[in-house]
Amino acid sequence: MVRVSVVGAKGRMGSHVVDAVKGAPDTELALTLDAGDDLAAITPDNTDVAVEFTVPSVSLGNVLVLVAQGVDVVVGTTGWTAEKLDKVREALAAAPRKDQAVFIAPNFAISAVLADHFATVAARYFESAEVIELHHPTKVDAPSGTAFHTAQGIAAARKAAGLGPVPDATETDGGSRGQVVDGIHVHAVRLRGLNAHEEILFGNAGEQLTIRADSFDRTSFMPGVLLAVRKLAEGGHAGLTVGLDHFLDL
Amino acid sequence: MVRVSVVGAKGRMGSHVVDAVKGAPDTELALTLDAGDDLAAITPDNTDVAVEFTVPSVSLGNVLVLVAQGVDVVVGTTGWTAEKLDKVREALAAAPRKDQAVFIAPNFAISAVLADHFATVAARYFESAEVIELHHPTKVDAPSGTAFHTAQGIAAARKAAGLGPVPDATETDGGSRGQVVDGIHVHAVRLRGLNAHEEILFGNAGEQLTIRADSFDRTSFMPGVLLAVRKLAEGGHAGLTVGLDHFLDL
Amino acid sequence: MVRVSVVGAKGRMGSHVVDAVKGAPDTELALTLDAGDDLAAITPDNTDVAVEFTVPSVSLGNVLVLVAQGVDVVVGTTGWTAEKLDKVREALAAAPRKDQAVFIAPNFAISAVLADHFATVAARYFESAEVIELHHPTKVDAPSGTAFHTAQGIAAARKAAGLGPVPDATETDGGSRGQVVDGIHVHAVRLRGLNAHEEILFGNAGEQLTIRADSFDRTSFMPGVLLAVRKLAEGGHAGLTVGLDHFLDL
Amino acid sequence: MVRVSVVGAKGRMGSHVVDAVKGAPDTELALTLDAGDDLAAITPDNTDVAVEFTVPSVSLGNVLVLVAQGVDVVVGTTGWTAEKLDKVREALAAAPRKDQAVFIAPNFAISAVLADHFATVAARYFESAEVIELHHPTKVDAPSGTAFHTAQGIAAARKAAGLGPVPDATETDGGSRGQVVDGIHVHAVRLRGLNAHEEILFGNAGEQLTIRADSFDRTSFMPGVLLAVRKLAEGGHAGLTVGLDHFLDL
Repeated sequence: MVRVSVVGAKGRMGSHVVDAVKGAPDTELALTLDAGDDLAAITPDNTDVAVEFTVPSVSLGNVLVLVAQGVDVVVGTTGWTAEKLDKVREALAAAPRKDQAVFIAPNFAISAVLADHFATVAARYFESAEVIELHHPTKVDAPSGTAFHTAQGIAAARKAAGLGPVPDATETDGGSRGQVVDGIHVHAVRLRGLNAHEEILFGNAGEQLTIRADSFDRTSFMPGVLLAVRKLAEGGHAGLTVGLDHFLDL
Repeated sequence: MVRVSVVGAKGRMGSHVVDAVKGAPDTELALTLDAGDDLAAITPDNTDVAVEFTVPSVSLGNVLVLVAQGVDVVVGTTGWTAEKLDKVREALAAAPRKDQAVFIAPNFAISAVLADHFATVAARYFESAEVIELHHPTKVDAPSGTAFHTAQGIAAARKAAGLGPVPDATETDGGSRGQVVDGIHVHAVRLRGLNAHEEILFGNAGEQLTIRADSFDRTSFMPGVLLAVRKLAEGGHAGLTVGLDHFLDL
Repeated sequence: MVRVSVVGAKGRMGSHVVDAVKGAPDTELALTLDAGDDLAAITPDNTDVAVEFTVPSVSLGNVLVLVAQGVDVVVGTTGWTAEKLDKVREALAAAPRKDQAVFIAPNFAISAVLADHFATVAARYFESAEVIELHHPTKVDAPSGTAFHTAQGIAAARKAAGLGPVPDATETDGGSRGQVVDGIHVHAVRLRGLNAHEEILFGNAGEQLTIRADSFDRTSFMPGVLLAVRKLAEGGHAGLTVGLDHFLDL
Repeated sequence: MVRVSVVGAKGRMGSHVVDAVKGAPDTELALTLDAGDDLAAITPDNTDVAVEFTVPSVSLGNVLVLVAQGVDVVVGTTGWTAEKLDKVREALAAAPRKDQAVFIAPNFAISAVLADHFATVAARYFESAEVIELHHPTKVDAPSGTAFHTAQGIAAARKAAGLGPVPDATETDGGSRGQVVDGIHVHAVRLRGLNAHEEILFGNAGEQLTIRADSFDRTSFMPGVLLAVRKLAEGGHAGLTVGLDHFLDL
């Protein structure tokens, strides 16, 4: 059994992690901490992997403490910059255990990670490509970071394959063609009832390939969180790993 | 058997009309005319309904001649303005037959006409609504006239039902939210391999309604053309009628 | 303010009704009852409309009591047979108020009710029609009652329009063509992560019309429940009404 | 320029190949042969790659002749059995050129080949998986060979990953759950207006991944045919290769 402690256990995501750890046959819940609790309680004696889902302002500090205590960490908090990631790498280099591991993922939904990966594989084989993301109407940014990343990946794959710009004869448009990210058009839909969805469209003469990832609610992130927990627990992932695609056989 | 003459018989649409008229069990092909041919040949002696699929610059003239000769006309040519429509009405008022009829449709695809109609019915029952149209990449205007019309219809239905603006908390956007038509966001996708497609999305808390019309090729317009031909042939539609929805039991 | 009492208030659906009644600007929560509570507490003095979401074995009895006490009832419990409905009609005929109303709906999701209605309108205009329903894998019956009802409606509309059987040249099949309901093929998908979804496909040469209703969770039924509550509260719906389509402007 | 001869040049597929070869910037049309023409005309002097799209009864014979004459062959004709493939391998072993190549593909649509591949990659990460294929109503077999192959691939990937059966609590069903291929449910839709389409659905708690390939018409196979022609022309693919996935960077 992998012993898992949860930091931010009462939060929106953390409470789902607690349930997921309890529900899985190969993990057991160790400690649950929240704002005000002392991270020092989490040690290799009671915890194999800590899962950290808090807020950007405290996440780096939490990770540094946990690393110093010799605990592997799976991080779901967002807001990581290159500077912050470097500090994690430095902490790992100075960590008590040589094989210590930290895993950070911008997106734990396996469907979204797979869709993003498949998009980069398919991109080189199609004349046309566009991205549509659909979210709940309380989201403040558009397009989503995931859609932006997917468009960049498609553009890079097209460039590497020697493809030119996508065909587009549009002469008059009042904004309906969306945002252009590295030459790829990205559209954002906001609809009550939706959560987080991405649809990637590829076209050649006579054919279309569509890849769609739907995240209906936060439980969709739990298989990804558990996958990361198991990967760290089985070892062999020393250092900092960013992105769930590194833990999928792609 | 309804005797049908085709004006613009060698054109992209006209040639499909010729095939459709030949293929239907209740219609037969009378005359086929093209640029340079004399419209005077089409008379009530040989033709019950003329189908006119030419170009905007000559279509009004063709219709006026046919009306003067006492022939009912189904028109698929685009580019009709209020002024042009008024001239058709004047010609009909002075026509030899009192029950003479002209039918003009901006879109003969039954799926598209039904989708547009259903959208106006559904609009009053949902908090959110957006329109995505998808076309081949050689189309020069965006969004499509059909999508624009659908968005206007949704907006009018929402207003009539007392609904306020759609919820949208977007604060930062580089254009991904598309074009706003009367408060309704419209997105245009251009993809090689596609022809003409429209997807209308409605959302409430916990639910979504999607209506999608796909026109894969020009044969998709033929059931609508034949429907209009039959309606004029059976009579009872004297005067000018614009829009296939008038001939559907909605 | 419409005063609403909820019978089965702690149930899966009832608890959502309580929240919805509290959250709407024009309704207020009166009494909340559950198994063991005395229905006699609900009277016209404290309640305009009672919402009943319990289990089939007790629902009829609850409705009869509420009618006898002069309270209008919106019923969401399933399992209504023709015999049970007749007993409600008898009770209404003998009710203290002449304008007393009971409303029963097999499905309160507006998207599903609209999809079902649109399908019957569209059915007469297409050569082909099929129904795909998709649900969570813990559902014990297949296909869903909604999909069965939709297929029957499509078949009836086709028959009324004089359409023959759908084209299908299939000669060899191991069961993939699904269940045939009145000549319409119905497919049931069971997928973890889904809740209740229906997709209705229509096809003509060169075109397709797709109507899809997604119910992501139980909150999707609340707009329909509130709509029914408001309709009964505004009066004019004396007697028994079955089906949310009667309260939509279709 | 790659010199391409087409065998079966007047056939439904062959005529598209002729157009595609003429239209591509890096290929040129050499000879076009049909039933009755002498294959001896196609030699390394005039042809780099021959494309063979005929009928199953003559295809093997054609390939053996072309191999004996030292010409590489891309084969799109269906109906290949293990015995037939062995004869091609024997012919290649005895061929005049050591690096001689024959390529046979059951499906040249890149979107379909990618969808099939992505399905096997994704399969190990989801609790649920089902396959829906949609075709024109004149198709005589159901489900399609492609859908059958996809289901087998998903089942094999699940087994390799140690996944058990898909969750399914269905107790009563009249056939709507479709055909079960190695434990994976497969549904076949037949709809006028469609050509060849496949949708693969994966589900976990809270999330769904959908992969869809649409082939709208025969031009959809041409990018795949040209890709195979280029691969054989550039060399390095000696022997018999079956399946377009071998020529994609997956």
